[in-house]
Amino acid sequence: MTSPTAAPVLAAAGFPVVTMVGGGQLARMTAPAAVALGVGLRVLAADAADSAAQVVRDVRVGEHTDLTALQDAATGAAVLTFDHEHVPPQHLAALQDAGVVVRPGPAALAHAQDKLVMRRALAAAGVPCPRWAEVRTPADIEAFAEQVGWPVVLKTSRGGYDGHGVWVLDDAAAVRAHLAVTPLAQGAAWLVEERVDFAAELAAQVARSPSGQAVAYPVVRTVQTDGICTEVVAPAPGLPEALAIAAQRIALRVAGLLDVHGMLAVELFYTRDGRLLVNELAMRPHNSGHWSIDGALTSQFENHLRAVLDLPLGSPRMTAPYAVMVNVLGGQHPDMYRAYLHCMARDPGLRIHMYGKQVRPGRKVGHVTVIGDDLSTLLGRAHHAADYLTGVIDG
Amino acid sequence: MTSPTAAPVLAAAGFPVVTMVGGGQLARMTAPAAVALGVGLRVLAADAADSAAQVVRDVRVGEHTDLTALQDAATGAAVLTFDHEHVPPQHLAALQDAGVVVRPGPAALAHAQDKLVMRRALAAAGVPCPRWAEVRTPADIEAFAEQVGWPVVLKTSRGGYDGHGVWVLDDAAAVRAHLAVTPLAQGAAWLVEERVDFAAELAAQVARSPSGQAVAYPVVRTVQTDGICTEVVAPAPGLPEALAIAAQRIALRVAGLLDVHGMLAVELFYTRDGRLLVNELAMRPHNSGHWSIDGALTSQFENHLRAVLDLPLGSPRMTAPYAVMVNVLGGQHPDMYRAYLHCMARDPGLRIHMYGKQVRPGRKVGHVTVIGDDLSTLLGRAHHAADYLTGVIDG
Repeated sequence: MTSPTAAPVLAAAGFPVVTMVGGGQLARMTAPAAVALGVGLRVLAADAADSAAQVVRDVRVGEHTDLTALQDAATGAAVLTFDHEHVPPQHLAALQDAGVVVRPGPAALAHAQDKLVMRRALAAAGVPCPRWAEVRTPADIEAFAEQVGWPVVLKTSRGGYDGHGVWVLDDAAAVRAHLAVTPLAQGAAWLVEERVDFAAELAAQVARSPSGQAVAYPVVRTVQTDGICTEVVAPAPGLPEALAIAAQRIALRVAGLLDVHGMLAVELFYTRDGRLLVNELAMRPHNSGHWSIDGALTSQFENHLRAVLDLPLGSPRMTAPYAVMVNVLGGQHPDMYRAYLHCMARDPGLRIHMYGKQVRPGRKVGHVTVIGDDLSTLLGRAHHAADYLTGVIDG
Repeated sequence: MTSPTAAPVLAAAGFPVVTMVGGGQLARMTAPAAVALGVGLRVLAADAADSAAQVVRDVRVGEHTDLTALQDAATGAAVLTFDHEHVPPQHLAALQDAGVVVRPGPAALAHAQDKLVMRRALAAAGVPCPRWAEVRTPADIEAFAEQVGWPVVLKTSRGGYDGHGVWVLDDAAAVRAHLAVTPLAQGAAWLVEERVDFAAELAAQVARSPSGQAVAYPVVRTVQTDGICTEVVAPAPGLPEALAIAAQRIALRVAGLLDVHGMLAVELFYTRDGRLLVNELAMRPHNSGHWSIDGALTSQFENHLRAVLDLPLGSPRMTAPYAVMVNVLGGQHPDMYRAYLHCMARDPGLRIHMYGKQVRPGRKVGHVTVIGDDLSTLLGRAHHAADYLTGVIDG
């Protein structure tokens, strides 16, 4: 009836197919949302064994840098979207010229792909950011540091993620030593920023559709360890309501300003003197919103699909007073299954999410979420499980 | 790197693969649970376009009556389980003899496959059931009706579902007319039962693992329309706590008695005189537990996977005071997408689940769930959405 080479049926008649570029955990966690919505999900993955490629029907194996692979993956889909920001801008433009609906569009996505483009746009709009400058030479960086004080934060404008492409430099000697050994990737530039003395890092997520509808998730507190997001608490504990609303307004304003379609995460510094400064932007589901799978009526993954399809957005309301998400990093033991059994037995309310990835030390291989009303208990439960899965603790 | 003909990678090293027989919506809704758990899911579907076949990586196309197809689908999987009860018992025995781990096992499953086997086992154990008798002739049925009163309920012991294979007969003439035109399927027998005067129909679901761990979900109230489950309220409103506990105890007892591995649904009549009588059993995820995706910490689908893998079970605790699930039946319009847009726009808190099925009048094509604390509002919201999707109402 159906030949094995025919394109798989992904949805009922009248329901659209979404192509997501990238086979990582963000595409993987989008799959359950597509199942419920009844929309089809196709993934372009670099390898047929990738995290998302394990769990969707229609996997196209190819590189996100290969225009032909991108075009093939987009054929028949209502919209092309992303689990990362690394598709070359000229390919995005070519896809759009060929009639592919790309969301977020290339003009918006440029602000998540290039930190200098982002800083210029936010500065022009008066969105509060750390002090920053484009720099070319060690002397430029030193001159900037004279103004704002050492240490400073040096970033490549393009290609960074999870702490890669970001360096804290303490003095002029560190600048010269760093630049002597660190080549700048093609098309990238150097950006230097003041190091912000923050009380907490926050993230404000919104979903925004092409029709202009937008919803704001509760503002969360994030903890980064060695540049990797390791803990998220929703809502950000102790954040004054006026500041939470201000953070949501910044995110909604940025989404409108840049005409974002899909999820937008705005990472913010909450400074010790009570200001909010935009750190980074991501235009896709984001680590700071994984809690929403178990703690909100509509997950960030479902709202990303709804937004890129221009469907009405779902409620981001929380289903418990608090949700705590802690990432599970790979440890020394390649097989996590026994630890996983232990964690389930110890805590029947623990929500475990494994990404199907082979374990490597320090690699994000899953996350755990707990919801409830006592924050310190939730933090204890989530960290215990994550540490046990990593192998940091034994009991 | 990976040849297109190689078996797909479904999970990380050390994590098991579960094969589910059947490509319907129960297998489909099991897929998101497998994604989160990081366990692999393979589906044996009759057609590559089936509901579940649209959303899992590894689809084997074949019939559940084909032993070779069953064996092939089980190869390399840790356990074989089911989204329906229709695999022939001799095939289940052959699979087990060949070393396949089958859960629930054939001996348990016989009680969900054959209503006469079920009634005999429950009667022997003293589990309360409606009065019943095995019958062969119209005279047998009339003799039974003399004892319990007309009308009576005639059932085929095997092969019924969603009201098929069940008839309410008002008098001796109806019996003779019915038997004259209704052939008995091979291997089936006739079973007659009293028609119970119930105040409500209830369902008690439990998950039970091979280790003997079990968890009980809140007892729900179900409404059947023309034999199809159309509405479920969790927990059953107005049910005295002692009776809710009694229903959970019956379900736990039946699960232990029959050595069920996986989810067990016990459908019960709550009689007008305050008794609980077992109506039907299902040994798989069940329509009466769909609310648990959105309204419980651990869905029935996740706990079915945990149970058949002998993983520790997850908490069945509700995340809101009430959850209401209403099935979406196909109506006259083949394309539901516009109605779906309307429902999302009208109610951002509505949880919509579409099964990827082509619309046929009366066919279950999805369900909606709402959670909250005001039951009458929830009932209104859920029925409005389901009616609108079906096309019964316009506004």
